[in-house]
Amino acid sequence: MASVYFTPGPAQLYPTVAGHLQNALDQQVFSQSHRSQAFKDLYRRADEGLRALFGLPQDYAIYFTGSATEIWERSLQSLTSERTYHLVNGSFSKKYLDHAKWLGRDAQVLQVPFGQGFAIDQVQVPAGTELLAITQNETSSGVCVPVADIHLLRERNPEPLISVDIVSGAPYAPLDFSQIDMAFLSVQKGFGLPAGLGVWFVNERCRTKAAQLEGKQYTGGHHSIASLQDQYQGFQTPSTPNVLDIYLLAHVVEDMLAKGLDVIRQETEAKAQQLYGFLEESALFSPFVQEKAHRSPTVIVADVLERPAAEIISILKKQGNIVGSGYGAFKDKQIRIANFPAISGQEVEGLIQLLKRL
Amino acid sequence: MASVYFTPGPAQLYPTVAGHLQNALDQQVFSQSHRSQAFKDLYRRADEGLRALFGLPQDYAIYFTGSATEIWERSLQSLTSERTYHLVNGSFSKKYLDHAKWLGRDAQVLQVPFGQGFAIDQVQVPAGTELLAITQNETSSGVCVPVADIHLLRERNPEPLISVDIVSGAPYAPLDFSQIDMAFLSVQKGFGLPAGLGVWFVNERCRTKAAQLEGKQYTGGHHSIASLQDQYQGFQTPSTPNVLDIYLLAHVVEDMLAKGLDVIRQETEAKAQQLYGFLEESALFSPFVQEKAHRSPTVIVADVLERPAAEIISILKKQGNIVGSGYGAFKDKQIRIANFPAISGQEVEGLIQLLKRL
Repeated sequence: MASVYFTPGPAQLYPTVAGHLQNALDQQVFSQSHRSQAFKDLYRRADEGLRALFGLPQDYAIYFTGSATEIWERSLQSLTSERTYHLVNGSFSKKYLDHAKWLGRDAQVLQVPFGQGFAIDQVQVPAGTELLAITQNETSSGVCVPVADIHLLRERNPEPLISVDIVSGAPYAPLDFSQIDMAFLSVQKGFGLPAGLGVWFVNERCRTKAAQLEGKQYTGGHHSIASLQDQYQGFQTPSTPNVLDIYLLAHVVEDMLAKGLDVIRQETEAKAQQLYGFLEESALFSPFVQEKAHRSPTVIVADVLERPAAEIISILKKQGNIVGSGYGAFKDKQIRIANFPAISGQEVEGLIQLLKRL
Repeated sequence: MASVYFTPGPAQLYPTVAGHLQNALDQQVFSQSHRSQAFKDLYRRADEGLRALFGLPQDYAIYFTGSATEIWERSLQSLTSERTYHLVNGSFSKKYLDHAKWLGRDAQVLQVPFGQGFAIDQVQVPAGTELLAITQNETSSGVCVPVADIHLLRERNPEPLISVDIVSGAPYAPLDFSQIDMAFLSVQKGFGLPAGLGVWFVNERCRTKAAQLEGKQYTGGHHSIASLQDQYQGFQTPSTPNVLDIYLLAHVVEDMLAKGLDVIRQETEAKAQQLYGFLEESALFSPFVQEKAHRSPTVIVADVLERPAAEIISILKKQGNIVGSGYGAFKDKQIRIANFPAISGQEVEGLIQLLKRL
């Protein structure tokens, strides 16, 4: 019997994935040249779907990379030469910072403890910052930055490019993309696809800055913004991409549009409420994130009280419910429950029943 | 009715791919965490299979990236600081050179016309060269470098690291990996898998050189050899990889081992002989590569005489045989026929019959 994967990525596949994959095999999509009109049509289709789903302003371009990790690197290479500023509150926001340091940038940071969010009034972005990096949803700690706070950061910081990691917040987070300059995600989280594709949304301000740096420093080679944009004009990619994931993404985005993002958001919130509600009342668990406004609706982290987390995970696994372990040092003390669109309300209800019986 | 894809990548899927994909879906492989034991076991399985198939010496490590293109970049970042030397005779060997220039290396080159190979006695690698880049099989022109020549280059050049692009030559090319230092491929060619994964074989000499450069320059961030090796020790990856392709690769490699690489090589040679034999006798086509020793057995390029290549491609397509167009400037004058293991002798025979009737 199939298990339900509440893991925060790779995650439960979106219910329509297997059917789309079969259709693609039947149509021999994965044998088609990535320089063919058929591939260009596919890229355009994914592009149009993503624009509609996220409400992207006209000036955004959409590029594909091997992973979201690669986008940390490429965005810093193409968009910064000196100064970056990072809001760090977990392992993934920290990794964006690491990339900036590896690249020799003067990377400044506002760091708050694991499990905490940011008091926006305390964010003081230094003058001269080229890129402000925000992790909208920290997959490691289950802390989100409310989108209103991101919009406020733009209002207060018109100069720096604002880069938003929406890896585990998309497509739920109702971000206004006209208030930021770039965002990125990987497909094995909220879209419920097999891993292996990063998706990068880049606006005109980014492309202008990238053009200024071009020729002055190494901007990322085949995956510089200039190179990606050059190919994007013809719905092409600099290297052979993960066509399978682009195909699945194009189709799952259409499925989500057909269902309606409003419906997906309502369902996400209802499931999150159920899960947090249970954690609040449970004697065995408690929500790790204290501040309610900073509790992620899509990655829910629970402290496990008294019993080892591994024991809980193992019992649930035998019952066909796979939940994630705590991240890094919290492996033994926490569980993580992904609440992505692929997970139904019934499945969340089923998990809660099992958690209650522990 | 299904078509046969003679395209040089993305290419015909290996016949067992659809079945493996179904099994993986049934077992929910793509929902498993890339930090799980299940993934480590999968990586180990792919590693063991690839070692056996290619006869890799013990000291080789195997890393995964987003593409072979990325390996051009990463190998130069991790293994060179100053001087590289490139054998260029087509678009892909040229791209390796481009990456070296983009990275600011003093990149020297021996360039011969498109469609020609190298007279090995003319290869004079300058002293101080850190990396000698050889494209064993030029997908653009259908020219190969005989493996005996590569072994001879090692004999004459013991100092530089030798990097061999086997993207469209693997697994056919009987390369002795103890005579080189690294090699790389992408899975949408000879392995007949969906695109989106680069595979990098790296020996101890490379890792030693990479360690010397570490801290002195940007060596590739999360995809530096140091970072890849660090994760590889535990059969892990620095970022979430294309698990689907790694799964398919592990299984298709086992299928190839079960069939026997000797058998695959014999079949490849027999099919190549049939195709080149036809081209030699045809009034409509002639083999593009004149020097027989440099004719690739896996990517066969034909000049189309008198008629436009697009017309030929279109007629064949209607008959369910998809052949590749010529590369770049040769688009209108040539066709490319991939002769990968996924293509059967019968399918080659069928194509030849159609070509004869044109």
